[in-house]
Amino acid sequence: MSTPQRINPPRRILMGPGPSDTHPNVLSALAAPTVGHLDPYFLKTMNEVQDMLRQVFQTANELTIAVSGTGSSGMEACVVNLIEPGDRMLVCVNGVFGGRMQDVAGRAGAQVSTIERAFGEVFTPDEIAAAIREHSPKVVGIVHAETSTGALQPLDEIASIVHDAGALLLVDCVTSLGGVPVKVDDWGLDAVYSGTQKCLSCPPGLAPVTFSPRAIEVMESRQSKVASWYLDMSMVRNYWSDSSRAYHHTAPINMNYGLHEALRLALEEGLEVRFARHQRNHQALKTGLAALGIAYAVAEGQQLPMLNAVQIPDGVDDAAVRSRLLNEFGIEIGAGLGPMKGKTWRIGLMGEASTSRNVLLFLAALENCLSAQGVAINAGSSVAAANGFYAS
Amino acid sequence: MSTPQRINPPRRILMGPGPSDTHPNVLSALAAPTVGHLDPYFLKTMNEVQDMLRQVFQTANELTIAVSGTGSSGMEACVVNLIEPGDRMLVCVNGVFGGRMQDVAGRAGAQVSTIERAFGEVFTPDEIAAAIREHSPKVVGIVHAETSTGALQPLDEIASIVHDAGALLLVDCVTSLGGVPVKVDDWGLDAVYSGTQKCLSCPPGLAPVTFSPRAIEVMESRQSKVASWYLDMSMVRNYWSDSSRAYHHTAPINMNYGLHEALRLALEEGLEVRFARHQRNHQALKTGLAALGIAYAVAEGQQLPMLNAVQIPDGVDDAAVRSRLLNEFGIEIGAGLGPMKGKTWRIGLMGEASTSRNVLLFLAALENCLSAQGVAINAGSSVAAANGFYAS
Repeated sequence: MSTPQRINPPRRILMGPGPSDTHPNVLSALAAPTVGHLDPYFLKTMNEVQDMLRQVFQTANELTIAVSGTGSSGMEACVVNLIEPGDRMLVCVNGVFGGRMQDVAGRAGAQVSTIERAFGEVFTPDEIAAAIREHSPKVVGIVHAETSTGALQPLDEIASIVHDAGALLLVDCVTSLGGVPVKVDDWGLDAVYSGTQKCLSCPPGLAPVTFSPRAIEVMESRQSKVASWYLDMSMVRNYWSDSSRAYHHTAPINMNYGLHEALRLALEEGLEVRFARHQRNHQALKTGLAALGIAYAVAEGQQLPMLNAVQIPDGVDDAAVRSRLLNEFGIEIGAGLGPMKGKTWRIGLMGEASTSRNVLLFLAALENCLSAQGVAINAGSSVAAANGFYAS
Repeated sequence: MSTPQRINPPRRILMGPGPSDTHPNVLSALAAPTVGHLDPYFLKTMNEVQDMLRQVFQTANELTIAVSGTGSSGMEACVVNLIEPGDRMLVCVNGVFGGRMQDVAGRAGAQVSTIERAFGEVFTPDEIAAAIREHSPKVVGIVHAETSTGALQPLDEIASIVHDAGALLLVDCVTSLGGVPVKVDDWGLDAVYSGTQKCLSCPPGLAPVTFSPRAIEVMESRQSKVASWYLDMSMVRNYWSDSSRAYHHTAPINMNYGLHEALRLALEEGLEVRFARHQRNHQALKTGLAALGIAYAVAEGQQLPMLNAVQIPDGVDDAAVRSRLLNEFGIEIGAGLGPMKGKTWRIGLMGEASTSRNVLLFLAALENCLSAQGVAINAGSSVAAANGFYAS
């Protein structure tokens, strides 16, 4: 029987909602020889991954690890470890991932209440405070960077409101970590999950998570077992703990190699420098798009620098543009999700992909695609505008 | 702040209970450029992974995929999709992984009953039939190759007993798949999970699973949502389905590249040839160990070829031998688990690691370790015996 050809992927430029482009070092690390999951070298690697994750999360939380699954498994890990059947959870829903959290919480047996905002909008501290007064939740869940909409939720005022009500704050930082500040300790976040394939620029497959001492207290006083054996932090943390190393499951060795190198590169660059780079390329892209009359789908001041959700101009064929970008230029961008489907594009400038080179190439290629559809544009204007921004 | 050194693992020979050694092609595939999780190239790769998994599982089951987590997530996926709260499940426990399945089933809300056998023993069809009559389970769970004990559970007579009672047969094939026959369709297995890091010789991080039409019928007639959002096959299968491709989570792209190549290599070798290779090297190892007076911990005829659980001779320092094997020769073998701790070694000959080279090197190195401890051995006898076997 014939077998398929060996893996030989096309070379894409990943400017969608993730995965993002990876640094060659990270790919090399993935291909390093596998060692055992209890090998002294791997235990040292785990310690270093934890230490670097703490730096990226800006936290001293001891329980800071990479869950052996993708970002969504990180969401589930945070929810199922904090929620026991019958617990009340308030979920703030303004996009696909808030909706997903609501679903996950319900499956965990939570009595879920929600507050909602239209896709692309964010919540004010006041409305969260009011919802907490109404519902008295044990856990409040919110999304920092809504990958489905491109909106950035300010968090700094929320934790004190949540804590004053005796609740825990659970936050989705899948798309924000490594691209904008995520100050777990300063902001008082209690359970935070992320993914590797966004602004950390590692392939998908692991979910960085961190739990505050307050969250651990709640976990340790549970009356019932965590519904998921695979994600039960009371066991997983023993494997990651330097003093225990009790076997739980076989960690994805090579994926952890890749994350190790991705974190190393991020810290070598420096978090502040990295955040500034994301901002700068976001502004350059926005300046270029403005020259083509393309506006953002999210209000000024609430836009994610690493995921630019923009309005597709009237009369432009969404699928044809994305298809031409991919097939002619190898550039992947994202379609809109939910109510934004067909109305927005999601242009990622995440991690390694946040470069002036990608901004200029994307604008030039977009002009090509629009012209190919007969859309009237001021040819060259977007590239000129972005270059003007970079020169300023 | 200083960052750690780049990943630079020691070169191990992985002869423990997994992970096993990987082929250089698989490591190269892991390092191939990442594409998007909805990229046409990745969708084609997913189709090919499914097709090759079906060949390795010897099944026509449509729902045959790689779960985005390690083998234990495959166990959880099989259990939580078939079990609803209050359902009865019978688990056959003769090692750590049967015990784990019992725990997972309990967390899923099952009324769990068990039959037990000592570590290293297996179950007869008759005792399973009796337990089914007593407990009337909806699902019967059993481990094909107990990684913790080295025992192989015959399965061919069990499915009809289970089906005659109207139940489903759920099987752990983590260590068996790719090393001994796993005939999902011929044997009538309903839900089967495996891992990538055993006889498929891919790094850990994915869990191949397959579900029979009978299992799907049960899943489709569920009254309650699957407790785990991440592992809910009713959604995951839509992402893997060629006709739907509904986004669920972001698949671990590069891990799937690695699995693709590992499966390609296994099929290129040919399953029957591969199984014979595992048997041959197992017999050679056993012949060599016998010359040193080292016996198996599992009865003849029930021994796993890919995981040789042997009795540590009296007076030998378990930890010192394993440590010397690792530090002097870079050879990893496994310690005993549970009641076998300190009493057995688990010597893996899995996938790429099942070679005459590894058998001879291991025996020579073991002689070195035993001599270093002052254990009286007939020096050279194990290597001579294994070479004699290979020559016969």
